[in-house]
Amino acid sequence: MKNFDVVIIGAGHAGCEEDGQPPVLGCKVLLATMNLDSIAYLACNPSIGGTAKGHLVCEIDALGSIMGIIADKTALQIRMLNVGKGAAVFSLRAQADKIKYHNTMKQTLENIENITIKQAEVAEILTGGYYVTGVKFTSMNRILIGNFTADSGPSGFANSSHLTKSLINLGLEIRRFKTGTPPRVNSRTIDFSKTDEQLGDDNIQTFSFITRNPIKNIVKCHLTYTNPETHKIIRDNIHLSAMYSGKIEGVGARYCPSIEDKIVRFAGRDRHQVFLEPESLNTNETYLQGISTSLPAGVQEQFVHSIAGLENAQIMRDAYAIEYNCINSLQLFPTLEYKSIKGINAARRGVCAPSNTISDENRHENISIHSKNAEYQPFVLSRTESYVGVLIDDLVTVGTNEPYRMFTSRAEHRLYLRQDNADLRLTPVGREIGLVDDYRWRIFNKKLKQIEKVRERSQDKVIWNNEKMTIEQVLKRSNLNLKTLNEELKIFNKIPTAVADLITNEVKYAGYLTRENAKIAEAKRHEATLLPHDFNYSQITSLRKEAQIKLNQIKPQNIAQATRISGVTPADINVILVYFKKNPIK
Amino acid sequence: MKNFDVVIIGAGHAGCEEDGQPPVLGCKVLLATMNLDSIAYLACNPSIGGTAKGHLVCEIDALGSIMGIIADKTALQIRMLNVGKGAAVFSLRAQADKIKYHNTMKQTLENIENITIKQAEVAEILTGGYYVTGVKFTSMNRILIGNFTADSGPSGFANSSHLTKSLINLGLEIRRFKTGTPPRVNSRTIDFSKTDEQLGDDNIQTFSFITRNPIKNIVKCHLTYTNPETHKIIRDNIHLSAMYSGKIEGVGARYCPSIEDKIVRFAGRDRHQVFLEPESLNTNETYLQGISTSLPAGVQEQFVHSIAGLENAQIMRDAYAIEYNCINSLQLFPTLEYKSIKGINAARRGVCAPSNTISDENRHENISIHSKNAEYQPFVLSRTESYVGVLIDDLVTVGTNEPYRMFTSRAEHRLYLRQDNADLRLTPVGREIGLVDDYRWRIFNKKLKQIEKVRERSQDKVIWNNEKMTIEQVLKRSNLNLKTLNEELKIFNKIPTAVADLITNEVKYAGYLTRENAKIAEAKRHEATLLPHDFNYSQITSLRKEAQIKLNQIKPQNIAQATRISGVTPADINVILVYFKKNPIK
Repeated sequence: MKNFDVVIIGAGHAGCEEDGQPPVLGCKVLLATMNLDSIAYLACNPSIGGTAKGHLVCEIDALGSIMGIIADKTALQIRMLNVGKGAAVFSLRAQADKIKYHNTMKQTLENIENITIKQAEVAEILTGGYYVTGVKFTSMNRILIGNFTADSGPSGFANSSHLTKSLINLGLEIRRFKTGTPPRVNSRTIDFSKTDEQLGDDNIQTFSFITRNPIKNIVKCHLTYTNPETHKIIRDNIHLSAMYSGKIEGVGARYCPSIEDKIVRFAGRDRHQVFLEPESLNTNETYLQGISTSLPAGVQEQFVHSIAGLENAQIMRDAYAIEYNCINSLQLFPTLEYKSIKGINAARRGVCAPSNTISDENRHENISIHSKNAEYQPFVLSRTESYVGVLIDDLVTVGTNEPYRMFTSRAEHRLYLRQDNADLRLTPVGREIGLVDDYRWRIFNKKLKQIEKVRERSQDKVIWNNEKMTIEQVLKRSNLNLKTLNEELKIFNKIPTAVADLITNEVKYAGYLTRENAKIAEAKRHEATLLPHDFNYSQITSLRKEAQIKLNQIKPQNIAQATRISGVTPADINVILVYFKKNPIK
Repeated sequence: MKNFDVVIIGAGHAGCEEDGQPPVLGCKVLLATMNLDSIAYLACNPSIGGTAKGHLVCEIDALGSIMGIIADKTALQIRMLNVGKGAAVFSLRAQADKIKYHNTMKQTLENIENITIKQAEVAEILTGGYYVTGVKFTSMNRILIGNFTADSGPSGFANSSHLTKSLINLGLEIRRFKTGTPPRVNSRTIDFSKTDEQLGDDNIQTFSFITRNPIKNIVKCHLTYTNPETHKIIRDNIHLSAMYSGKIEGVGARYCPSIEDKIVRFAGRDRHQVFLEPESLNTNETYLQGISTSLPAGVQEQFVHSIAGLENAQIMRDAYAIEYNCINSLQLFPTLEYKSIKGINAARRGVCAPSNTISDENRHENISIHSKNAEYQPFVLSRTESYVGVLIDDLVTVGTNEPYRMFTSRAEHRLYLRQDNADLRLTPVGREIGLVDDYRWRIFNKKLKQIEKVRERSQDKVIWNNEKMTIEQVLKRSNLNLKTLNEELKIFNKIPTAVADLITNEVKYAGYLTRENAKIAEAKRHEATLLPHDFNYSQITSLRKEAQIKLNQIKPQNIAQATRISGVTPADINVILVYFKKNPIK
């Protein structure tokens, strides 16, 4: 095979997303996946987005990605979650057509010029000193990237786990996490009359701001509940649960508990929600969201049949728990590059890196490799400008011993980091690094002009409750959204929902946002105070021993990151600041 | 899980087809497959039918199956093969949309009332004495069929090959065969200008006589050729071929040779055909028919790139050879029941049995199990009435030590066993055993009436080449088909292609068919002379030793079958006939 600039290993969310990006940047990409049929397969859950995860999808879309576009195109149903709460926590969630999503993503990638897609298992990452030189497939005896080529002896197909071994040999620390998935039942065997309908939104928002075709909800979801009988069956059999986390608390997904976990932890509750979600128009398989389990198949059947509407449900796929390997994220720079060897990223350096975290925030199954000849500018998003930044900083600065899940509460500037302004925050950044194409850029600029125009007109005065005031003042005082307000006042001919939402939030939260901006500015000053990559903190003898060790381990990029390292105190930060004032970084 | 009457193991062609049938017969069916995504996956080749295999598809369609209907519905392109030759060898072949075929078949089965589809691996077939009592899953500790239930200890997921072990324990002799599949390349990287177009038929025939919607060809296939350079690359590397059959001649597929086989066997030829067949509208993957291989990936790439149009083709899936297990077909009765234990069929007893042979005529991966309580009438199709009968008789009477492939030349009555009369031959049989539903039966009878009407009118006289003669006589003397003839003579308002073809063939071949019918009648007399299932031929002391052994092994159902056993001579047949005349079967 020919040489490549970048090799992406694995084609889940992250792999697909990364795959779309480097070719735009002029790189030749090889996407290696063990099975072409598992590209963007949505194995865990046929949904995209959800609380705080919708933010991530909107952000990577704003940066020029394809996930949001395809999620919009293949959605069966879309809902904005948390609409009863503040705008900061509004989060979009789509029920995706699992089969269509896979097919569309696969064919989109197949059609990208600079990508070679290959069904193959990577056996080994090859290095020469500090640099990656290539990868080796189990089925091939050739080396694939860089200018460096070599032959090894012929070899036949071998079993998997090769890659893990190779990563361990390179010094990466492997962790074993677990997750679970619920049973899938045949919709033909569900009695929907005993369940509640869950409709999608009337006025559908999209993940991608370039989605033009209006989206319709194609299916209804349904809601049912577990009951005391269900709980009794599970409690009686809980000793049979492989996942039951009494003993292995830290390893399972704390925020994605199995039904047996829920029943033990919330012993007082006599019911839990079970959402019945169709997986695709092309199959009757229905996902029972809320009851992931690792109980034996016989017990699954028993407790599923105790749930209203599911009395005769045929389980087509049993629920199961899986273990997976991930790496210790503290071994990564904020660029997601592995610290010890140049050219390995937990996901591709830069923009696309965090996309692997959208469904399962901390799996690091996707590894990307790039040639030392491929020229990349390091690119890091900050906590002050994106959830992507929050996610990566949490992982590489604080680290995690258990599956990480994104929440809006993890973002200290969440009033600013909203879905509705994701494009305003990030599309200019994406344009600068070359990921936002002309089409997207044109639409973005059109939106900017619309916003400007509407904000100008919002200074016009109207009569409201017998008082003369600007439209903006009305917006501030009333509970109305600009869209609804406009229906009453009829000021604008038509106003796109995205524009109306953005202005509504900026006007209503103007006071808070001003204070938030001040905090962001301060954080940015700290971010601007850079620290050296290759500095040995033991040289600062006045620094406490613990701080020395932690700083050497994390190697923070700037003071802002240093302040967030557990075990580094504000006093330590002062010591560092003083030291580098005296000894400026060259 | 509840009790079932029938358990089908595996969901390839045979499994799917069998699955559709027993529920019609009032049985409760469990379809167990190791992966729901592999139901009707067309792994080996995204086509249906082909020479002599088209006959098989038409025959099982006539018997009430779903394969032909779904093949018609999901075809990308349909062609009648061998139209330059006699009507006996006309064979329909469809390029199927692999993804759509899978989805449609899966959802069709999901919607059938009496079927439970389950992703599960069967670990063991349980028996009580001479009878099957149930099956055990690797993931479950319950037994699934019959009235007999038992619990075994809990067990986790285990590796495969359990079933093979279980079959061996039951006395089945397992054989290991091999087959191969060619590389799949990205259509975006093919230069089609260097290839020839392969269009589908203008006037498309269908597999199923109940398909009503007109079918259109959606894609073009293309044809290119290997060349001396291709052959040199392969010859230079042939020692690396895992499949290369110099040493293991009998085990590979004689009539589906790999490209390295072809190059060795036909050393004089300087090119071989390579058909470029799109796998689906939903993917760019293109199947390179004609160059299946088990050469290493690097060599595959080299020789594929030497072919016109494929110079830059990206191989998305490497070609590979696979080994598979099948059972010694001589251990089966013509009902495909295993001789030693009641309730195990190589494929379901009766009609659907041979459908597993349509793509790969002799894989016996599909096993069906039925409860001793399920009442079936034994049902056997004869060689005189169908290719299905030829296939099964070849397998259970003569047996095979290598992959079996159907040819028209295997059928001694092939002038009668045509595609165009498959429904006339078999739909009444299917109706009798309950597999042909009212809808199909109505359409069938309508066709019968049309045929009758047209044949009546064919006695009308017309002027042809200045001579007065019946339409039938014109048909006999000219080279024209009734359809084309009618375009000239304008006798009938409209005449369905299927009806025109049938009458044309019956009129043109009338003389041959009369002689064939006499032979068929004789064969049927031999078939009617039944032999006992449980007779020990060593009792006939006047019979040669070899004949005694072979007859005891095969246990032929009738004299016709006995005459075809290798090692049983016409003289032996006479001895048997005399014996049973003196000692009639009770």
